Amino acid sequence: MKGGFNTDRIGKLRKGLEEKGVDAVLIFEPHNMYYMTGFTGGEGCAVITHDKTYLVTDFRYIEQAENESPNFEVVRADNQAKELPAFINSIGIKTACFEEEFINYKLYSDLKENLDGIELIPLGDLIKDIRQVKDEGEIERISKAQSLAEEALGYVKGLIRPGMTEKEVAIELEMYIKKGGAAGLSFETIVASGWRSSLPHGRATDKVIEDGDFVTIDFGIMWDWYCSDMTRTYIVGHASEKQKDIYSVVLEAQMAALEGMKAGMTGIEADKLARDVIERYGFGEYFGHGLGHGVGLQVHEPPQVNKRGDKPLKENSVVTCEPGIYIPGLGGVRIEDLLVVKNNGILNLTHIDKKLEIL
Amino acid sequence: MKGGFNTDRIGKLRKGLEEKGVDAVLIFEPHNMYYMTGFTGGEGCAVITHDKTYLVTDFRYIEQAENESPNFEVVRADNQAKELPAFINSIGIKTACFEEEFINYKLYSDLKENLDGIELIPLGDLIKDIRQVKDEGEIERISKAQSLAEEALGYVKGLIRPGMTEKEVAIELEMYIKKGGAAGLSFETIVASGWRSSLPHGRATDKVIEDGDFVTIDFGIMWDWYCSDMTRTYIVGHASEKQKDIYSVVLEAQMAALEGMKAGMTGIEADKLARDVIERYGFGEYFGHGLGHGVGLQVHEPPQVNKRGDKPLKENSVVTCEPGIYIPGLGGVRIEDLLVVKNNGILNLTHIDKKLEIL
Repeated sequence: MKGGFNTDRIGKLRKGLEEKGVDAVLIFEPHNMYYMTGFTGGEGCAVITHDKTYLVTDFRYIEQAENESPNFEVVRADNQAKELPAFINSIGIKTACFEEEFINYKLYSDLKENLDGIELIPLGDLIKDIRQVKDEGEIERISKAQSLAEEALGYVKGLIRPGMTEKEVAIELEMYIKKGGAAGLSFETIVASGWRSSLPHGRATDKVIEDGDFVTIDFGIMWDWYCSDMTRTYIVGHASEKQKDIYSVVLEAQMAALEGMKAGMTGIEADKLARDVIERYGFGEYFGHGLGHGVGLQVHEPPQVNKRGDKPLKENSVVTCEPGIYIPGLGGVRIEDLLVVKNNGILNLTHIDKKLEIL
Repeated sequence: MKGGFNTDRIGKLRKGLEEKGVDAVLIFEPHNMYYMTGFTGGEGCAVITHDKTYLVTDFRYIEQAENESPNFEVVRADNQAKELPAFINSIGIKTACFEEEFINYKLYSDLKENLDGIELIPLGDLIKDIRQVKDEGEIERISKAQSLAEEALGYVKGLIRPGMTEKEVAIELEMYIKKGGAAGLSFETIVASGWRSSLPHGRATDKVIEDGDFVTIDFGIMWDWYCSDMTRTYIVGHASEKQKDIYSVVLEAQMAALEGMKAGMTGIEADKLARDVIERYGFGEYFGHGLGHGVGLQVHEPPQVNKRGDKPLKENSVVTCEPGIYIPGLGGVRIEDLLVVKNNGILNLTHIDKKLEIL
């Protein structure tokens, strides 16, 4: 099934709550809320106990919530600050988990003050862990996003030439995917050319693309609430030997990671597969970010695939593999694929070419 | 001056900190960070004391931070959880304000645990109050956003006819503004037709627009980091008497508010100007949201212009005025203008027609 009330997800959640010995969870974070309820309004609070499912929201979203979350009891609370605690106080729970990485300090303080003797307990990784393992429908939606993104990149690549600005490239990409039915971008498109390509996160600017520039394009789209993410780096016009060398090192690093990654390996181990290659060529100091990150309803979500990723990767996680080398002044290269982690290796969702192309 | 280091803003901030008797402020929220530093990377922490300005960020943003925030000392902290508290501990402050409505519970707990005897104090409305009063450059950027949005709506309105989907309308709007140089939308465009027009926040869907439908279009754009926001409701094909009646009540309510609003009046009083008219015609229960909200770097920011807005509106606030009537089953009408609050009335930044149009 798509989004929506999913007994499997709610079941896993309740099992996790049971293991923690907690009566309920308060879900405020919009992606968690959609994942568990199907409600796309993003404002309000889903309250899930061991035997009930409530969706508390305000006037603006009542009709939508009733349409999108037919298996939840929709509760109207126009003044959340007052009415939400009153409602939670009325349902007979003693303990509730909350999203400690989403709830701001003020909301936490307000809840704590207004909940009558209900103990608030940080949720930890419970929903993150559930969301990390994608089901078939989710992988299908991510693949669909990815394949439309590739179509767009294939088209736009053909338009790039000296004199075009980075922003013009970004707009062409975006128009293509919108016409193709995507809801939008999963993040602001990065088009970084020439000296700007050494900025790993350089959003498209009015800089004109020049002959001899690296052009790094990192973009993703949202399809049916799920994200894609990929990066390709091209050279425009003429390539120097130094540029070709850097490109081939990044590609070799990425291939090494793609060949070695599989479920059970930690994020640190996966990161090291690519990092070792880059270090061997002496560019270690120019690869300052992690190898990758999980992708799903959000473009950055668990698991961590970097030096801090000490947990084993799970089968059916969807992650990026994106080594890069960035040399201030000279420019940078990043090559990023999106893949499904499997027990015996990876399933690459990215099919667009990655041999060096000079546009 | 545009964005960036602005001695006036930093001066007001330091004055506020002095009044609170606090040594520094930790700014994590991306809009606050941009407002005070000019840095658009959005990740990291600006630390502003009475005599120093630091911008702490990671590897990915160092070059960008140095370019965008030349008056800040850029401090590299790749592992924020460890290195940020260590840095803050090193600069000799005893008290620091934090953004209690932005910082999540976990970050707060981590900071509290790792700051050596530095007291953390909720910031309250200090930066909100400063940001609420727009300077000339800000009003210029908001006007520019608004005028491009109107150009786009004027163009797209001419395309609407039965058989077109809501999404098609939204895409045409977005392509127009992107080609016109806007960075993007300030929120996901609302195109709500027919029965869906009774959803105050109904994002564009694949619903086909039919003869006799109300079509409510609520959209805004981002221009040079500033937002616009406006709504117009049209009728497609043929209008019923009931539809015309509802439209005229909403318009009368909006005109009453526009005529009466001025600085010094509270948000509650402004809201009441429109609400009284809608109630007088017996539609009070169908106007379930507030009259308006502030607009600036964010599309929803202070001041509140609704039943909870108990503070006086300040001169040079930029706010919306958007009464609406939504009747489930039948549909809804909202008319929204964007305006600058002045001591003697309002300066309306919205110039596109609002008499009932049947497309």
